[in-house]
Amino acid sequence: MRIGIIGAGQLGRMLALAGFPLGLRFQFVDRSADTPGGQVAPILVGELDDVALLTELARHNDVVTFDWENVSAQGLAAIEAHTTVLPPPAALAASQDRLAEKELFRELRIPTPEFAVVDSEGDLERATTRIGLPGVLKTRRLGYDGKGQRVLRQTSDRSAAWRTLGGRALIFEAFVDFSREVSIIGARSRNGEICTYPLAANVHAHGILSYTTAPYVHRSLQRLAEHYLRRVLQHFNYVGVLAIEFFVVRGRLLANEMAPRVHNSGHWTIEGAMTSQFENHLRAIIGWPLGSTAATGHSAMLNFIGRLPDRARWLREPNLFFHDYGKQARAGRKLGHCTVIEPTAARRDLRLRRLLSLRERSISVG
Amino acid sequence: MRIGIIGAGQLGRMLALAGFPLGLRFQFVDRSADTPGGQVAPILVGELDDVALLTELARHNDVVTFDWENVSAQGLAAIEAHTTVLPPPAALAASQDRLAEKELFRELRIPTPEFAVVDSEGDLERATTRIGLPGVLKTRRLGYDGKGQRVLRQTSDRSAAWRTLGGRALIFEAFVDFSREVSIIGARSRNGEICTYPLAANVHAHGILSYTTAPYVHRSLQRLAEHYLRRVLQHFNYVGVLAIEFFVVRGRLLANEMAPRVHNSGHWTIEGAMTSQFENHLRAIIGWPLGSTAATGHSAMLNFIGRLPDRARWLREPNLFFHDYGKQARAGRKLGHCTVIEPTAARRDLRLRRLLSLRERSISVG
Repeated sequence: MRIGIIGAGQLGRMLALAGFPLGLRFQFVDRSADTPGGQVAPILVGELDDVALLTELARHNDVVTFDWENVSAQGLAAIEAHTTVLPPPAALAASQDRLAEKELFRELRIPTPEFAVVDSEGDLERATTRIGLPGVLKTRRLGYDGKGQRVLRQTSDRSAAWRTLGGRALIFEAFVDFSREVSIIGARSRNGEICTYPLAANVHAHGILSYTTAPYVHRSLQRLAEHYLRRVLQHFNYVGVLAIEFFVVRGRLLANEMAPRVHNSGHWTIEGAMTSQFENHLRAIIGWPLGSTAATGHSAMLNFIGRLPDRARWLREPNLFFHDYGKQARAGRKLGHCTVIEPTAARRDLRLRRLLSLRERSISVG
Repeated sequence: MRIGIIGAGQLGRMLALAGFPLGLRFQFVDRSADTPGGQVAPILVGELDDVALLTELARHNDVVTFDWENVSAQGLAAIEAHTTVLPPPAALAASQDRLAEKELFRELRIPTPEFAVVDSEGDLERATTRIGLPGVLKTRRLGYDGKGQRVLRQTSDRSAAWRTLGGRALIFEAFVDFSREVSIIGARSRNGEICTYPLAANVHAHGILSYTTAPYVHRSLQRLAEHYLRRVLQHFNYVGVLAIEFFVVRGRLLANEMAPRVHNSGHWTIEGAMTSQFENHLRAIIGWPLGSTAATGHSAMLNFIGRLPDRARWLREPNLFFHDYGKQARAGRKLGHCTVIEPTAARRDLRLRRLLSLRERSISVG
């Protein structure tokens, strides 16, 4: 069985690494051969929206999937004649536009922070008046890891934010005073089977995921998140892994965004769950039975951003799983992560604090 | 860091899969590109004893290792000028000759079954008289998975065995009436650090490993096996993973053979131990700290030989890890394996019996 992956970043690489033991073969498309995915499988080099290239990928693979959500939905639609493209491009298209995404959540009765469309400076003034401040002005398209966003704290911030982001399609969202950010990841298989992972609790820094702990044990929120996830999966007749990020606000979940793909907050599942999100994505798009999502312990996953710490030092840490994506170091870039698993949440949290401090020292000094 | 691997079978493939998350790059040498290793990393195609090819491998990689023990020790010696070759070729050479291996065990005070050199039919007669029957006549070199062996049950079997194997350097060994076969796997790092895994219990069929359970919990045998393993590791200033297979006879361990490489009886460590034998081999030859060898539960590993069973059926099995080496099916060939992990040995043994019966049905019918 051959799987084509559009985008050869770390997510694609980890998909391939999860699939090799199952006997799957992979081929990537991306802009450079020396990408995380291109280092572990054959790659077609070119633009991600080059229909001729995508068609070549489609012709050589039984299923085509993608590893980031800014892939051209039109490009995908164009190759559906040649192969099976999963997850469905319609879900991808919805996730590419923050407005469409929020409207979908609303249609599916999934609560979200208040939001308003902003196409002019006047729209921005009306939105901030109706929704209040602080709030966040975001581009509707092509934003990720905190890019294309400005926080507005007072009315005088409006014109600077407009100067930076204006001219593009924008959305203004209420700034949510959340107690926690959590995400749910689940998969739906070609035959309709659904599985969901335990909630993960996420902490961001500068708009990028800094660390995740899982499972976040909270029975009613878990149930609620699973309901919401199922609504989205069923709405699209979705196939593959889907993630939804939520803010926890006074015991409620407000959906922030969704990702129609494997997700950074699910990296703990590689060692911390019986079946990883990567393997379950592959099982889902092939139509194989899904694997158990049970956690094997209490995990913490820390991202390495901008710089990898000294490997030999970190490998001395007991029961730590180190992941290096094979990328060149660059400020703000996700270069790797590590996961530790402990038998109790308390021990995991202790361990996490030690590792956060070690990361702080080894990345800034190193 | 770049690792060259001579031999691109399933062991090499699993080394590469263990190394990718650590950011390592791999290059293989083997006779065909469509080998288990060649499917997941670049490969130089040619004979395993082609010094020019091995030299090319040596020039492009920081460390060169091997995935089976019949690699030419002379070939390895020739490339040591260009790169670091680990494990040490001297250990490889000893393991390639059953006589040298047994003499080494004897020198290191590691008990073995009785044995005698057989270079003529007269030697065979004297050996069977002194050691007794039944016994096993084996080629000293190039035997594996039961190949190059004949069991002698009565004196009249001698001439047929001699006709089949005679003319090559042979060894006659007492047939051991063992209660169990076990193996120990350990690693020694470039800086002398040593780790050892829990004992595994192995069951062979037709000379090929059929299944392994681990840990085989037996405190005194564990200690004894670790002592023996350490003697061999220290004797060679060994670096990398080494395995020794033993017969258990009335509470004693008799060494059967050693393998200067990762070993089939250690495949359970991929999911069943905190660090796999493959990762620890890489850590050892690079000089990184070794990882914990603790078992995470009670594992059973079943080989798939000659034919892979129906994947979709087997993936329905809870908490089962399926490994397909990407090989063409052929009688007697190791094509894949699976591992299950249970919280107790009793549950593992129950599970194993069910899976053995499922394997019997699905491979013979499928």
